[in-house]
Amino acid sequence: MLKVGIVGGTGYTGVELLRLLAQHPEVELIAITSRGEAGTAVADMFPSLRGRVSLKFADPKTAQLDRCDVVFFATPHGVAMEQTPALLAAGVRVIDLAADFRIKDLVEWEKWYRLEHTAPALAEEAVYGLPEVNRDKIRTARVVANPGCFATSVQLGFLPLLESGLVDPAHLIADAKSGVSGAGRKAEVPTLFSEASDNFKAYAVPGHRHLPEMVENLKQATGQPVHMVFVPHLTPMVRGIHATLYARITQEADFQALYERRYGREPFVDVLPAGSHPDTRSVRAANMCRIAVHRPGGGDTLVVLSVIDNLVKGAAGQAVQNMNIMFGLDECAGLSQIPVLP
Amino acid sequence: MLKVGIVGGTGYTGVELLRLLAQHPEVELIAITSRGEAGTAVADMFPSLRGRVSLKFADPKTAQLDRCDVVFFATPHGVAMEQTPALLAAGVRVIDLAADFRIKDLVEWEKWYRLEHTAPALAEEAVYGLPEVNRDKIRTARVVANPGCFATSVQLGFLPLLESGLVDPAHLIADAKSGVSGAGRKAEVPTLFSEASDNFKAYAVPGHRHLPEMVENLKQATGQPVHMVFVPHLTPMVRGIHATLYARITQEADFQALYERRYGREPFVDVLPAGSHPDTRSVRAANMCRIAVHRPGGGDTLVVLSVIDNLVKGAAGQAVQNMNIMFGLDECAGLSQIPVLP
Amino acid sequence: MLKVGIVGGTGYTGVELLRLLAQHPEVELIAITSRGEAGTAVADMFPSLRGRVSLKFADPKTAQLDRCDVVFFATPHGVAMEQTPALLAAGVRVIDLAADFRIKDLVEWEKWYRLEHTAPALAEEAVYGLPEVNRDKIRTARVVANPGCFATSVQLGFLPLLESGLVDPAHLIADAKSGVSGAGRKAEVPTLFSEASDNFKAYAVPGHRHLPEMVENLKQATGQPVHMVFVPHLTPMVRGIHATLYARITQEADFQALYERRYGREPFVDVLPAGSHPDTRSVRAANMCRIAVHRPGGGDTLVVLSVIDNLVKGAAGQAVQNMNIMFGLDECAGLSQIPVLP
Amino acid sequence: MLKVGIVGGTGYTGVELLRLLAQHPEVELIAITSRGEAGTAVADMFPSLRGRVSLKFADPKTAQLDRCDVVFFATPHGVAMEQTPALLAAGVRVIDLAADFRIKDLVEWEKWYRLEHTAPALAEEAVYGLPEVNRDKIRTARVVANPGCFATSVQLGFLPLLESGLVDPAHLIADAKSGVSGAGRKAEVPTLFSEASDNFKAYAVPGHRHLPEMVENLKQATGQPVHMVFVPHLTPMVRGIHATLYARITQEADFQALYERRYGREPFVDVLPAGSHPDTRSVRAANMCRIAVHRPGGGDTLVVLSVIDNLVKGAAGQAVQNMNIMFGLDECAGLSQIPVLP
Repeated sequence: MLKVGIVGGTGYTGVELLRLLAQHPEVELIAITSRGEAGTAVADMFPSLRGRVSLKFADPKTAQLDRCDVVFFATPHGVAMEQTPALLAAGVRVIDLAADFRIKDLVEWEKWYRLEHTAPALAEEAVYGLPEVNRDKIRTARVVANPGCFATSVQLGFLPLLESGLVDPAHLIADAKSGVSGAGRKAEVPTLFSEASDNFKAYAVPGHRHLPEMVENLKQATGQPVHMVFVPHLTPMVRGIHATLYARITQEADFQALYERRYGREPFVDVLPAGSHPDTRSVRAANMCRIAVHRPGGGDTLVVLSVIDNLVKGAAGQAVQNMNIMFGLDECAGLSQIPVLP
Repeated sequence: MLKVGIVGGTGYTGVELLRLLAQHPEVELIAITSRGEAGTAVADMFPSLRGRVSLKFADPKTAQLDRCDVVFFATPHGVAMEQTPALLAAGVRVIDLAADFRIKDLVEWEKWYRLEHTAPALAEEAVYGLPEVNRDKIRTARVVANPGCFATSVQLGFLPLLESGLVDPAHLIADAKSGVSGAGRKAEVPTLFSEASDNFKAYAVPGHRHLPEMVENLKQATGQPVHMVFVPHLTPMVRGIHATLYARITQEADFQALYERRYGREPFVDVLPAGSHPDTRSVRAANMCRIAVHRPGGGDTLVVLSVIDNLVKGAAGQAVQNMNIMFGLDECAGLSQIPVLP
Repeated sequence: MLKVGIVGGTGYTGVELLRLLAQHPEVELIAITSRGEAGTAVADMFPSLRGRVSLKFADPKTAQLDRCDVVFFATPHGVAMEQTPALLAAGVRVIDLAADFRIKDLVEWEKWYRLEHTAPALAEEAVYGLPEVNRDKIRTARVVANPGCFATSVQLGFLPLLESGLVDPAHLIADAKSGVSGAGRKAEVPTLFSEASDNFKAYAVPGHRHLPEMVENLKQATGQPVHMVFVPHLTPMVRGIHATLYARITQEADFQALYERRYGREPFVDVLPAGSHPDTRSVRAANMCRIAVHRPGGGDTLVVLSVIDNLVKGAAGQAVQNMNIMFGLDECAGLSQIPVLP
Repeated sequence: MLKVGIVGGTGYTGVELLRLLAQHPEVELIAITSRGEAGTAVADMFPSLRGRVSLKFADPKTAQLDRCDVVFFATPHGVAMEQTPALLAAGVRVIDLAADFRIKDLVEWEKWYRLEHTAPALAEEAVYGLPEVNRDKIRTARVVANPGCFATSVQLGFLPLLESGLVDPAHLIADAKSGVSGAGRKAEVPTLFSEASDNFKAYAVPGHRHLPEMVENLKQATGQPVHMVFVPHLTPMVRGIHATLYARITQEADFQALYERRYGREPFVDVLPAGSHPDTRSVRAANMCRIAVHRPGGGDTLVVLSVIDNLVKGAAGQAVQNMNIMFGLDECAGLSQIPVLP
């Protein structure tokens, strides 16, 4: 059994990790930390876990995370880079669900996250945890940077096109819609029910933190400069991301076949039949990305629809998938939940 | 492996049965029938099941359900009573998720369901499938009448009080709130998104079909006449029932202890600590009933809060629980899903 | 034109007052104050008011509210009792939408609001602003205590019964469901979209602040001791309260006729035909209470359904109605909005 | 007072027309027809109208619509083209909220609407009722084709760019998100609450009826061929459209100033300050389009955000605006509702 710890388990990513790990056949939960909630039983905060998780939140100082084989960081940005060096020194491997290790270009990183990066060598060493791209590197990684939720849906949607060089990489458009849980469990006015319900809006159109992450990684796929217009929107649902992607075709191909080939062996990417429209609930609560490819009117613009559950394939599920890969387990272990519909 | 069939799998109860049974370690899905959708792949109608259920909907006439060990009816009322005799004759056991066998008093039944009952002997024989009351009878039943969703939440909430004779059984009040999936997947105006969203209303206040079912079964628990005012409401969420129950205390007791004792060994009833307020999402997508007991102001009225997921403990999950009992499996087999929160 | 000021306009009650007052034919908005937002244009915070409200939030100290004919307090509890004396001294009349003046029994008040009451004489003088009960006193009131939202829906539902002495006043049950805007625009975890959406729960079952307000005022209606069990619930919609009220009949009457007679001349209480089920959207964004009366199974328990928009008849609309009465205007002035459906 | 009739008032467009017209100072509602509901009081179907609309639905055959000055068609496609000739002959002017007269190219029309057009001369004569483009023609029109909801939001967003020739008209992208009321009040499975809630999806990506309408009218604005990729999405809210528009810049300009100039005198188009993100609730229940213009990263792609309430500026409100223009009334008469927020 893998000994697993979680740093910062009071947010949505944390409770989702707990849901998945508590059902994982090869995992023993050792500790979960929270500065603010130390001493509280996890199941008192999240009654959904009653009878399933008996841990209490532990003080980070006394949690002895160095007993673990792997530690997940489900913390705000900036925490993992502080604590990872000591864990690595103790032989613990790390999966960071925040953004500390997602970007190699630390100048860019510091611009978007408004922090000084304190572990540049680890940022360099860390492997970007998109298994569909980096599976082999993840196997041996000491530190895995779990991708952002938008970044996962957008990259999986664009990757086949960019790897094959069939579209103009300088004019990509990603129009993405996220459920509100993507904003986390912080008490803030814009994500109150009475603000976000029965309402729809774009945000961060001038610039969003996930953009450099996506551009840096897609650039590696295509080998050319990538420019993307990324417009995220808030949609009144709890879970789910729907990315609607637009790319200008520069070379003809059978795009449906391209996607089916590219993802044919991927357990967590499902290419739908031509003409399909995936809905977010078709992946609700499951580690899955479903993709459909359209070419409206036979024109020169390809439209790719890509859906995930932001908390699963966009966060906790992908993190567990990475853990499975890192420790040589069945990649699907603990990730066989069927989506909840309706 | 149990050979399992489903009659009528295109509604919400049907797709939920498929979600649970496809993950059940002891079940082999043999056939699922639908008159309207015969030939359609199940996963084409419900993409959440892609890669998990490879069956097509079969024509009821050619489905050979007599090969099954057990058949679930997820049909409108009136279908099971027609088809059950032949299945029983072929040695197949039946679990009806509709109302055909829920009430022994067929005069009452025919009044509420506006059908002539065609299998009165089976209505008499059938066991009411509330495991917390009838576990032993369910073991050997040929026909199990799976309780209604409201009926499950209300009965589990009132049972300890009535069995102990501590409240006035002639003046029970059940104020119940249901998510919209309780109304099924029929195309009807009142359950359109634009009608039911951002809206709240009571319905069927003059009388509701679940009332006689509840009264008949609660009467058996108390041995006295039971009278209940039952007011169902439609609340804008997909899944979940919240029953708020009121009873006049006639004899003092430690009510919290009473509930804890009554349900202490029940795997799917969770009595919360005193002072709790269960929310429906704490049981979302899981086979669980959570209950809290209050006595506001120390007065003579007890308030019991009881929540379930109407599609799981209120339908498909309880049906699987009954199947497990009928066939001597671990009662929890295939029912270990942790609730999805948020 | 009436000169009107608002203290504390950044919450939902404040913006709703602005929506109503900006359309009111006899009102000139003079000032709106906010400590935190002084200098911000109201329409920058609430874009719905662009082009309709040109005021900026003013610092309370410099707002010169003493120029007003009437000032509305849309503040947290405790503010109005501090500022009202000076306004009265300047000849300004006051309508408090918070709870400072709602209860005469200040021992009770201090228990629930955990503040020392600093203006007991005004609490005594203030008129409880339920026009259907106190219209004449409101006309000449210097200080009007605008009722709470739950309190409005529950009292309007019970009043005809209690005034006529037809039910047992010692065993009233009010099962009330509120949209999330009732919790205000404070940033708090439980009212985040991802917590409150697709979810339903009761809260404050042991005791709620609106209970003493309701009991005190209903006692005046019946002249006997009143005891009520009040269970509020949070339902996933923005606006609306649905109160489901239960009372034990002690004397026979034509209850439908009773309600129609009692409210026949009330412009903002609508008694529906027998057998109706009002939905909250039928009053959305309008100053209206709709009521239906049921007697399920002809039993001894009466069920009254009462719906309002918590921000209108439950707050800002009723406040404007009170203003109209206080200043001799047409009681319906500025309150003719037709509910928004769907 | 204008004498007004409505054909087909049982859908959402119909009840919204009633809400607006019942409050309109210059309108007398003469008749509203419905084949299925003849004899039913309008307020029995839509309780929001109790006390405000006393009409009953009339049989189309006996409704004497020829007594009206103007008749609105809130019907499925194909009805207006049948009935309009007789009304015109009787001197009645017509505003069609369906699509019968929106496209001049009837070959295209017949392809999308799968009907033979029976009034080609009227299709030719009809004026496309987008006041911001065709105000002068609308004044004297006998038949006004009220624009589609998507078409309104997309055209108002693109018009300034196309009229000025500053972007590539051959590569427009409109990524539009609609609330569910846009699908109407028909009982259909995909718009059930349990299907559309907590869910997000694109639809009709291969082609949508509003596309030719938009292209034909935008072509007139630019004088060049227009090609647009249009991807509509269903978002879980009742009202509102959010169009996110992408255009490749071909000529530099101060785009913010361009929009402010273009719409400076328009009463129902509001250009937000640079950097804004309009939300749909900022126009909820009001006849308003709010627009923001972005140029992310200073690149060559312009992003325009355009929001309307699909039932108001996208349907009934714009129809009333057209009526005001046709009859020389104040264009804003009856359209001064302030958006309902929250």
